[in-house]
Amino acid sequence: MKPPERGFPVSEYQARLDRAQALMKAANLSALFLTTEPEIRYFTGFLTRFWESPTRPWYLVVPATGKPVAVIPAIGSHLMSRTWVTDIRTWVSPHYTDDGIGLLADTLAEVAGPDGNIGVPSSAETHLRMPRADWQRLTGLLKQNRLVPDADITRRLRIVKSPREIDKIRTACGVVDRAFSRVPEFARTGELLDRVFRRFQALSLDEGADWIGYLAGAAESQGYGDVISPATSKKIQTGDVLMLDTGVVWDGYFCDFDRNFSIGPPTKAVKDAHARLIDATQAAFEVARPGKTVAALFHAMDAVLTGGNSGDEPGRLGHGLGMQLTEWPSILPQDQTVMEEGMVLTLEPGFALDGGKIMVHEENIVFTDAGAEYLSTPAPRDIRVLD
Amino acid sequence: MKPPERGFPVSEYQARLDRAQALMKAANLSALFLTTEPEIRYFTGFLTRFWESPTRPWYLVVPATGKPVAVIPAIGSHLMSRTWVTDIRTWVSPHYTDDGIGLLADTLAEVAGPDGNIGVPSSAETHLRMPRADWQRLTGLLKQNRLVPDADITRRLRIVKSPREIDKIRTACGVVDRAFSRVPEFARTGELLDRVFRRFQALSLDEGADWIGYLAGAAESQGYGDVISPATSKKIQTGDVLMLDTGVVWDGYFCDFDRNFSIGPPTKAVKDAHARLIDATQAAFEVARPGKTVAALFHAMDAVLTGGNSGDEPGRLGHGLGMQLTEWPSILPQDQTVMEEGMVLTLEPGFALDGGKIMVHEENIVFTDAGAEYLSTPAPRDIRVLD
Repeated sequence: MKPPERGFPVSEYQARLDRAQALMKAANLSALFLTTEPEIRYFTGFLTRFWESPTRPWYLVVPATGKPVAVIPAIGSHLMSRTWVTDIRTWVSPHYTDDGIGLLADTLAEVAGPDGNIGVPSSAETHLRMPRADWQRLTGLLKQNRLVPDADITRRLRIVKSPREIDKIRTACGVVDRAFSRVPEFARTGELLDRVFRRFQALSLDEGADWIGYLAGAAESQGYGDVISPATSKKIQTGDVLMLDTGVVWDGYFCDFDRNFSIGPPTKAVKDAHARLIDATQAAFEVARPGKTVAALFHAMDAVLTGGNSGDEPGRLGHGLGMQLTEWPSILPQDQTVMEEGMVLTLEPGFALDGGKIMVHEENIVFTDAGAEYLSTPAPRDIRVLD
Repeated sequence: MKPPERGFPVSEYQARLDRAQALMKAANLSALFLTTEPEIRYFTGFLTRFWESPTRPWYLVVPATGKPVAVIPAIGSHLMSRTWVTDIRTWVSPHYTDDGIGLLADTLAEVAGPDGNIGVPSSAETHLRMPRADWQRLTGLLKQNRLVPDADITRRLRIVKSPREIDKIRTACGVVDRAFSRVPEFARTGELLDRVFRRFQALSLDEGADWIGYLAGAAESQGYGDVISPATSKKIQTGDVLMLDTGVVWDGYFCDFDRNFSIGPPTKAVKDAHARLIDATQAAFEVARPGKTVAALFHAMDAVLTGGNSGDEPGRLGHGLGMQLTEWPSILPQDQTVMEEGMVLTLEPGFALDGGKIMVHEENIVFTDAGAEYLSTPAPRDIRVLD
C-alpha cells in the first residue's frame, strides 16, 4: 500500500489556527505561548528529532489574528523557513546572559498588546519546556500581560484528528502490523530478549517506520511484572509470554499497540487471560461511537475483565494517541469526555493472573461518524504460539 | 569487542548521592526535587523509554541524608523496585483530582523538614516536567518550605563522567563507528534519502545500539542548509554531500557524531571545507587537557575556521554529552568551565561555504588525566567518496 503524502497543505494549518483563534476569543486570550514539540509542530509543521537535545528552548506565539510567530534559536531558522510560518525571530543559542528571553518578552508584548492575557498550557499531560529561571525572568519582563492557563485549547484541538492525521497514524499502524507478523522470524526459545528488541526495531524500519519512538516488553513465565521495561539480555525460555509494545513514528505520528506471544504451548491461565483481553477489547469496540463518553469504554472492558469490580482506583484501560505516544483522554470511569468522529484511541485492557503477573493487550481505533474502525489489525482470540 | 556490563553497582549510586549531599550541605538545601528522565535516572538507575509518554509525572526527592525517595505512578513501581531505591511511594496516575501532588507535598515536607529549602534545577538545559497547574498547587501546599534553585548541583555532578559511564559512551561510539563504515553498502546515487536514514538506523541496531535516539542529515550540493532536518524522500544525486548525524543509545548513554560523504568526486570547495573541519577538530583535540577552559577549545577551532574572526555571536562548536544527546558545557568563547578528567565532549566545528550552505564535522572525546582521547574513531582529512 502506498503511504500517504508527507506533511500537510497550508490549508490544514490555517484550519487549526482558525479553530484556535475562535477558542482564544471565547476565552479572552490575546495570545497562546507554546514551548513543547507537539504544541509547536501542531501549529507550524516544524518536524525534527532535534528536540532530543535539551539545550535550546523553542518558543511559538499564536496571536489572536494572523499567523504564528516563531521565536527560536538560529540553528532552527532554515528548517522553520520551510514551513508556512513567515515571522521567524531568532537568536544565537545557547546564550549565557539572555537565552532568547528579551526577544520573547518583546514578541509576546507586541502580539498580545497592552493588558492582553497570554494562555499557557497548564493542565494534565502538559509542561513548560524552558528553564525555570528563564520563566521567572519572562514573567518579570511581562508586567503588562498576565500569563494564564490556556483554557485547554491545545488539548481541545489536538484531541480530534483530521483525515490526514488519521492516515498518518494508520500508516504507522500498518508498519507495526507487518513487523509483528514477522516476529516468528527471530523470536524463539534460546534467543536473547535484547536481540529480539533490536531485530524488531530493525524490522519496523524495514517495513517503513521513520523511527522507533518507543519499545518496551518482557518475556516471562505466566505473564510479566510491568509493561514499561527495556530489554534485558535474558534468554527467552519455553513457557514464557513474550510481549512487545511499540510506538513507531511515520511522518511525526505514532501508533501504539502491543502483541503477546506464547513461547511453546500456553498454559491454560495464559490462554484464558489472552482470550479475555481480546474479548474486553472487542466489547469496548462494540460500544465505541460518537456521543458516548470515554467512561463507557472503560465499563465495557471492565465488565469483561473484573465483572465490574475493579475497585476504587483502577488504572486506565487506554488513551488517546497521535503526535505523541499517549495523549488525552484516559479510558477511566471518571473521564466524561464525549467521543467525537476523528478521535483516535488505544484500547488497552490489562489482566492480573494468579501469582501477581499481568498481561496487557492493545489495539488502536478511530471514531467514525457511525462507530469506530480498527487502525491496527485486531489480534485473534488465541494467543499466537512461537516455537 | 565485548560490551561492558549493563547498569551500575550500588556503590556508583551511593557515590553520586554522597557528592550530591555534600553539595547540598554547602548550599543549605534540605532536599532536591527532580522531575526529568536524566535527573531521576542519575540517582536511581530507573531506565525506561516510557518517558516518551507525556501523560504521567514522575518525581524524585533526594534528602540531605539517606537514600532518594521515589514518588511515582503505580505503573512504575515494579521497575523502580528493581533499582537500589527502597522508599517508593505510588499513586494511580492519571488521577483527575490529585495526580500525586498531595503525596508529593507530604513527602517533600517530611524529607526537607520544617523550613528546609528544597532545590529545584532551574538554569540552562533544565526544565520542570510537570503540569504548571500542579506546580502551583504544590507551592501552595508547601507553605513551610521554600523551593529554590538547586545551586546547579545536578549539572556539577553530571558534567564529570565516571569510568563506567565513559565505557557506555565508548560502546555507543563504537556502534556508530561500525555503522558509518557500512554506509557505502546502501548510500549511492539514485537512492532515496529516507531509505538511507532507515537503513542506517537498522545497521546501528545490528551493530548493537539499544535504540536510535537521534538522526538528522541531508544530501545536497555544496553542503547543506542545516544539521537538524529529518529525511526527505529526495533522490541522492552525484555531487551531493551526504551528511548523517546520529546519537544512538547504549544502556542509557549517548554518542553524538556525524560523518560527511561525497557522492562522486567532491568539488574543491567541499574537499577543502572537509579538510579544514578535520584540522579544526584536531586543533581542539591537541589543546584539550584538564585545567584549560572550554573557551580554549573554541579558540583553537575558530582559528582554523575563521582565522579568529567568527564575529560577536558565534554558534557553539561542540558540547557535553552522556545521559542526554547534548549536555553542558557549550564550546563557546564565553564558557569558562574548567576541563576535568572524565568530562566527555563533542568537538563540532562548522564551516560556511560560498553560496551559503554549511558543512559540519563532529567527534567525541573524553578528558584523561593528561590530555584527551577520542571515543569516536577520528575521520580522515579527505572526505569519503561514495559512488
